[in-house]
Amino acid sequence: MRAVVRRGASLVLDSVPDPTPGAGQVLARTLCCGICGSDLHAVHLLETMVELGRRSGEPALIDPTRDIVFGHEFCAEILDHGPDTDRRLKAGTRVVAMPVVATPQGFETVGYSNRYPGGFGEAIVLTGPMLLAVPNGLGDVQAAMTEPFAVGEHAVAESDAGPDTVNLVVGCGPVGLAVIAALKARGLGPVIASDYSPARRRVAEAFGADVVIDPAAENPHSRWSALGVPHSRTERSVLALTGNTGKRAVIFECVGVPGVIQSLIEAVPVGSQILVVGVCMQTDAIEPFLCINKSLELKFVLGYTPEEFARTLHHIAEGVIDVRPAITAEVGLEGVADAFRALGDPEAQCKMVVRP
Amino acid sequence: MRAVVRRGASLVLDSVPDPTPGAGQVLARTLCCGICGSDLHAVHLLETMVELGRRSGEPALIDPTRDIVFGHEFCAEILDHGPDTDRRLKAGTRVVAMPVVATPQGFETVGYSNRYPGGFGEAIVLTGPMLLAVPNGLGDVQAAMTEPFAVGEHAVAESDAGPDTVNLVVGCGPVGLAVIAALKARGLGPVIASDYSPARRRVAEAFGADVVIDPAAENPHSRWSALGVPHSRTERSVLALTGNTGKRAVIFECVGVPGVIQSLIEAVPVGSQILVVGVCMQTDAIEPFLCINKSLELKFVLGYTPEEFARTLHHIAEGVIDVRPAITAEVGLEGVADAFRALGDPEAQCKMVVRP
Repeated sequence: MRAVVRRGASLVLDSVPDPTPGAGQVLARTLCCGICGSDLHAVHLLETMVELGRRSGEPALIDPTRDIVFGHEFCAEILDHGPDTDRRLKAGTRVVAMPVVATPQGFETVGYSNRYPGGFGEAIVLTGPMLLAVPNGLGDVQAAMTEPFAVGEHAVAESDAGPDTVNLVVGCGPVGLAVIAALKARGLGPVIASDYSPARRRVAEAFGADVVIDPAAENPHSRWSALGVPHSRTERSVLALTGNTGKRAVIFECVGVPGVIQSLIEAVPVGSQILVVGVCMQTDAIEPFLCINKSLELKFVLGYTPEEFARTLHHIAEGVIDVRPAITAEVGLEGVADAFRALGDPEAQCKMVVRP
Repeated sequence: MRAVVRRGASLVLDSVPDPTPGAGQVLARTLCCGICGSDLHAVHLLETMVELGRRSGEPALIDPTRDIVFGHEFCAEILDHGPDTDRRLKAGTRVVAMPVVATPQGFETVGYSNRYPGGFGEAIVLTGPMLLAVPNGLGDVQAAMTEPFAVGEHAVAESDAGPDTVNLVVGCGPVGLAVIAALKARGLGPVIASDYSPARRRVAEAFGADVVIDPAAENPHSRWSALGVPHSRTERSVLALTGNTGKRAVIFECVGVPGVIQSLIEAVPVGSQILVVGVCMQTDAIEPFLCINKSLELKFVLGYTPEEFARTLHHIAEGVIDVRPAITAEVGLEGVADAFRALGDPEAQCKMVVRP
C-alpha cells in the first residue's frame, strides 16, 4: 500500500507491505488521520523520545533507524477480520479506536511502531474489541478528532477543575482547544484562554473560552483577584476574615516549550494546580523554593482512559463538542511532508487532516 | 534581654530590647526552642529568601540588613498578658503555638521578623487565642517539637498516602522523621526510609520505618515491584490482566538540594505522587517529558493548618509520636552559633534544642 514513511529524519511517500490482521485483529481502510504535535516532534526527535521512553522504564518497542508510518488520530472503515476475531462490527462499518493494538508479544502503539503502520498509510490493523463504531452521520474528520480531544478530556478529568475553580488554558493549539472543549462540555467556567496567535485566539473563542487574552497585550495573571482567586497568602488571609475561602486557580500548560512551566510557577496564585499537558522535550529549569512557598501542585498528564475516549466520541457525535473550528485543512498522502512544515506557523494552520 | 541575633550573615549573642505585649498579645519566657533547617539556610541566604518571598507575591516584612532573632520551634511559659487580652491561660502556663503573631499591621512570623524576636531569645510575644497549653507532664523539649513534627503531619495530610500506597521517605533529617512519624501515627505502611547517614537511619528505625535503606548500598527503587507497585506502564498493564490495579507509590522528598527531584523523576514508578517537603533554595533542572511519560504528580507543601498543629501536639503528648530519638543535644544561647555549625554533620547531630 501507499504510505508516508518516516525514514531517517524525513518523511517520504513510498510503498510499504500491506498490513495483515492476525488473531483478534481487524484490517481497516484509513479514511482520514489527523497530524499530532507529537508527530512533528517525532520526525526529528524520535531517537530522543525512544531514549526518554526507555528511561521511563518502558521496553523499547521502536527502532528509530527503521521505517515507521505515523498517524494515531484516525477514522477507518473495516475491511476484513483476522482469524478468531469478534465480528461484532461488520465490514463497511466506520470506526475509531485508541491507537493501541494487542499482539501476541504485547501491546504496540499504532502510529509509533515498526510493525503496525499508522493512519498516514492506506490501511491499518486494529484490535477488534477496542473498536468504537462512529455514530451514524458523524463525518470522518470529526470522528478522527476523538483521539486529540480525548487528551483534553483526560487532562480535565485529572484536574481539580470544578465549580470553585477559575481555569486558565495557556496555549490554544489543538491540545489547549481540547482542554477548553472538555471544560465547557462539563459546564465549567470561567475559562480563560491565552495565546500569542490571533488565529488561535479566534478558535479558542469559537470553542467557548469565556475570556481570551493576548499575553503580549495583557498579563493573563492580572485577572485572578477580580475573578475571586486570592493571589497571595496575605490576600487569602484577608479574604478568610470575611468567611470566604475564595476560588482556586487551575492552569493547563498546553505549550510544551522550555521555560513555560517556570513562567507559570512565578505568575500563578498561591495554592494553584498546574496541569502539564504540553510535551516539553528538553530539560527545563524550575525554582522549587517558589513552588513550596506558593504550595503549588504540578500534575503531568498523558493519554486517556478507554472511558474518556468513548465519552469524547459521544460528546462530538452529540454536538456537545464541535471540533470543526480547529480543522484548518485536509491533504492527501502526497501533501503530508508539506503539512508538517505548514503546522509550524500557528497563523496558517491548527489541525490538519490527512486523507490517504 | 539576651538573644542570639542574626546580624549580617553571622549569629552573635547580644542584648536586645525586651519585647512587650500589645493588645491581644501575651509575653512568654522561652523555655526551649529547636533549631530548624530553614534557620541554617537563613543565616546565609536570608536576602535570597526575602527576594523569593517577594516573587511569590508576599509583601516583604523582613529587612535582612537589620537584626533578627531566629527560633520558631518553641515551648514557652506565660509571663504576662497585654491589654485587652484573653486571660484563658494564666501566667505560669506552659504553651506552644504556631509561630505567628497578630499585630495591628497584620500577621508576622515569630522568628522571621525584625520586630518580633523568636525563641533564640529569653522572651517572646505571641497571640493569646493561638496558644495551646502543654498537657500536664509533657516535657518542654518534647512540646517544642510540635512545630517541626506538624510539618510532617501536613505533608502526609496533603498526600494520597493511604491503605493502597507504598510510601518512601527520602532523607531522614528532622523533616523526613516528621513524615515517618505522621505516617506511622495514621497506621500507614509500609514506610521505606532512605538516608546515606547511618545515624539518621538508626533514628528512622526508631521512628518506626518498616524498611530502612542505605542508598549507597541498595537502590531504594528496586523494591517497588516486590511491594506490589507496578513500576512501568507495561507492568501495570500485565497486572491489570489479573484484575489487580496494584498499589501506588507516594514519595516524600525531604532532602532539599538541587538534583534530588530529578533523580526521583527518573527513578519512581509510573503514576507516583512526589511530595516535595525539603526546601531547595537553588534553581533546579527537571525533564518534563519523563514526568509526562510517567504521569507524575509533584506536590509542593509548606507549613500546616492550626488543626494539624494541635493534632501533632496531642500525638506527642499521648505517646502516639515519641520525638525523643530525634533530639541529639541541648545548648544554651552561647552555644547556638556552634550548634548551627554542628548541624552540618548528620552523623553528629539531628535536632538540637536551645535553652535560653
